[in-house]
Amino acid sequence: MASKPSIPKGTRDFSPSEVAKRQYIMQIIKSNFEKFGFQPIETPSFENSDTLMGKYGEEGDRLIFKILNSGDYLAKANPELLENKDSLRLTSSISEKALRYDLTVPFARYVVQHQNEIEFPFKRYQIQPVWRADRPQKGRFREFYQCDADVVGSTSLWQEVELVQLYDSVFSELGLHGTTIKINNRKVLSGIAEVIGASDKLIDFTVALDKLDKIGEEGVKKEMLEKGISAAALEKVQPLFSFSGTISEKIEQLSKLLSHSVEGLKGVEELQFICKNITDLGLQSAILDLDVTLARGLNYYTGAIFEVAPPKEVSMGSIGGGGRYDDLTGIFGLKNMSGVGISFGLDRIYLVVEELDLFPETVRVTTKALFINYGMDEAQYAMKAISFLRKAGIKVEMYPDAAKVGKQFGHADKRKIPFAVIAGTDEISQEKYALKNLISGEQILLTLEELKETLL
Amino acid sequence: MASKPSIPKGTRDFSPSEVAKRQYIMQIIKSNFEKFGFQPIETPSFENSDTLMGKYGEEGDRLIFKILNSGDYLAKANPELLENKDSLRLTSSISEKALRYDLTVPFARYVVQHQNEIEFPFKRYQIQPVWRADRPQKGRFREFYQCDADVVGSTSLWQEVELVQLYDSVFSELGLHGTTIKINNRKVLSGIAEVIGASDKLIDFTVALDKLDKIGEEGVKKEMLEKGISAAALEKVQPLFSFSGTISEKIEQLSKLLSHSVEGLKGVEELQFICKNITDLGLQSAILDLDVTLARGLNYYTGAIFEVAPPKEVSMGSIGGGGRYDDLTGIFGLKNMSGVGISFGLDRIYLVVEELDLFPETVRVTTKALFINYGMDEAQYAMKAISFLRKAGIKVEMYPDAAKVGKQFGHADKRKIPFAVIAGTDEISQEKYALKNLISGEQILLTLEELKETLL
Repeated sequence: MASKPSIPKGTRDFSPSEVAKRQYIMQIIKSNFEKFGFQPIETPSFENSDTLMGKYGEEGDRLIFKILNSGDYLAKANPELLENKDSLRLTSSISEKALRYDLTVPFARYVVQHQNEIEFPFKRYQIQPVWRADRPQKGRFREFYQCDADVVGSTSLWQEVELVQLYDSVFSELGLHGTTIKINNRKVLSGIAEVIGASDKLIDFTVALDKLDKIGEEGVKKEMLEKGISAAALEKVQPLFSFSGTISEKIEQLSKLLSHSVEGLKGVEELQFICKNITDLGLQSAILDLDVTLARGLNYYTGAIFEVAPPKEVSMGSIGGGGRYDDLTGIFGLKNMSGVGISFGLDRIYLVVEELDLFPETVRVTTKALFINYGMDEAQYAMKAISFLRKAGIKVEMYPDAAKVGKQFGHADKRKIPFAVIAGTDEISQEKYALKNLISGEQILLTLEELKETLL
Repeated sequence: MASKPSIPKGTRDFSPSEVAKRQYIMQIIKSNFEKFGFQPIETPSFENSDTLMGKYGEEGDRLIFKILNSGDYLAKANPELLENKDSLRLTSSISEKALRYDLTVPFARYVVQHQNEIEFPFKRYQIQPVWRADRPQKGRFREFYQCDADVVGSTSLWQEVELVQLYDSVFSELGLHGTTIKINNRKVLSGIAEVIGASDKLIDFTVALDKLDKIGEEGVKKEMLEKGISAAALEKVQPLFSFSGTISEKIEQLSKLLSHSVEGLKGVEELQFICKNITDLGLQSAILDLDVTLARGLNYYTGAIFEVAPPKEVSMGSIGGGGRYDDLTGIFGLKNMSGVGISFGLDRIYLVVEELDLFPETVRVTTKALFINYGMDEAQYAMKAISFLRKAGIKVEMYPDAAKVGKQFGHADKRKIPFAVIAGTDEISQEKYALKNLISGEQILLTLEELKETLL
């Protein structure tokens, strides 16, 4: 191979400093998941195709990476499809496995497959990569991590309360103050659809309403009328155009607006429980906001819907989202399993933490001290100290070759190693080690025990 | 989907307790990698096919999982190969990407691609899954983790010394006392081949020699003669049939035996340096053994070869291996980059630690206390305490529903949660919490502050 090697588009190599920063974020998410009682599971990177296909819509099916069968895969292929070059329909006869597209469907499969070993309600978390054959663009990759926490087997709204607290706890620990946790409820949206008299117009309606800040009430109404929502319907939901105030005030407005919709009122009641208890318990640094334009995963969620916006000084899409789905495992034959969960968008959180310069200085994994290698005898002397220090848990290493001293110090500098240890003939004769601070230049002579105490 | 869902053969779901145990082992490997100065990198799960194909031999190529191109993949397919159903040759025209088969080739690709950003010698570690379309069997999976540490860019034998120490440090920390770290050198094997007068017989020779314990000198010699090694050759390497004693004695025997092979003597010299320094520095719990029958990766390694056998009371194959390869990155066009590395076999280490019952009791992620849910008012009171305790880092949760109390205690029991917190009308009126030890049955009444101190 002559040309310089590369990696597939939409994928990434992570350098040591990037891995360290990613692990820092993942560790905070993980420790909070566990603090809230979630337990880790892991599922295989690839699933049987029939586990994944048909679960994400037609577009989703297209974006799932399929794995070619091993061996003579064409032997079993349908000859007619082969002849017609029917890629779409041939796939299932030459590919039986596919890469995980998200963590929710594999989780549902896991719950159904292991239902007899699981103690419900089951609070699980999962931090693993997923793959999508999407067109790569800024911030969108073909391989990326999802960090999900879900509870399955209980309809209690306390779980919604806890999931909002979990978001607040993670983002507060990351130092991301002022994230906005938007909440809505699918049943409220159904109620609005009832009121405007057209379920099929609901998306047009919420998309237009979302522009209220930018184009004003008149602009929004104009767009809605153009989309075929009647003027009479708009009149019925007039309060939504001046939808503001505290959460309680918003809930009161919604109550009135949806007074004739049984489902809508059920949604308002759920919102009220969740918001009241979150407010009573208090959040550390996040802001809770009731946003009736929030409509993510409209066909998927059945109760609460969440989305997290980063602090206002950063311009970036949502850094987390989730909601309640009443029938998580029905697709695999296990009925009446309500689930509720949230997801953290690792890549975007990384960009936000980076932009706000919130990664701690100490996040980078570095060696504490580099022992300079002056030759065979000195190296043996150094290695004895290194073995001793490592047993005490201190990260130290020796430059492997007796190269020019300038080159060795240069190595420490480029790797941002803060100390060098010098042990030449002089130091050896005194049974000591010279510890040089590579930032201040200060150098002190120490016994091995003192060296350990200093580096610990 | 009516039938119960399943996962592809050779893959695994990991339950919470399995994930916890796997993470326990990985965490010890990771912290030791870092203590020895290795830095983490991560590479994509799939690589361009031409990065992987042709690097693992014909058998390896067959075992690499290929990813089907997205979209109308047949449009670009070679019509002749399609018509002839030539699966093997068609693959490259309908698949451009493939799942990682090991971590070494992606590492070599990484080094070449990022050579201008890397400070050499580069000590990297990588803990990621790899995939092989192997026939699954006991202990062999199609998806499994590799844990590799390699240094690239220096020929210093101190690195071999350190890698043996690294093995010793990891296995000692896992409590696996009495692992045997076998060492050999590719150049010694070349020397033996020279002496027996046939490089192509070397594998037959080492395989037969390895049976010395079982079938005795006469049996081994008989097998060698059958394989076409001449009696005269056997006479020249006679000392190998009584190859025993300390490492120094073995090295002395090898020196004499290989006195006419320049390459062989170079190998002996390397072994001597490595073994002497390891012996001088001392190992914590592993046993170093010079094993001239060790011949893993014969076509790959060029210097030292390592393999780790588990403690003798466990019957299991090697739990780690590695060696020196003089030209790691040559396949990608960067010449003269010597590398040396070792790998830890996570799955087998897991089985050994399990069999010897060495997982600590505390390894399982558990919630410390379950708050019993007696209804709305009590739940609100409980949730205030829970928020407070979580901020102190304590893992607590409330049963989400006001279910029968027996069911809630049963839940704590099945999840092995050690404490329950009871806060009904009585406790609330006193502003206290009853903490029940679910093992002893003991119950005490505490303030919130006392509860925190007790659970911390």
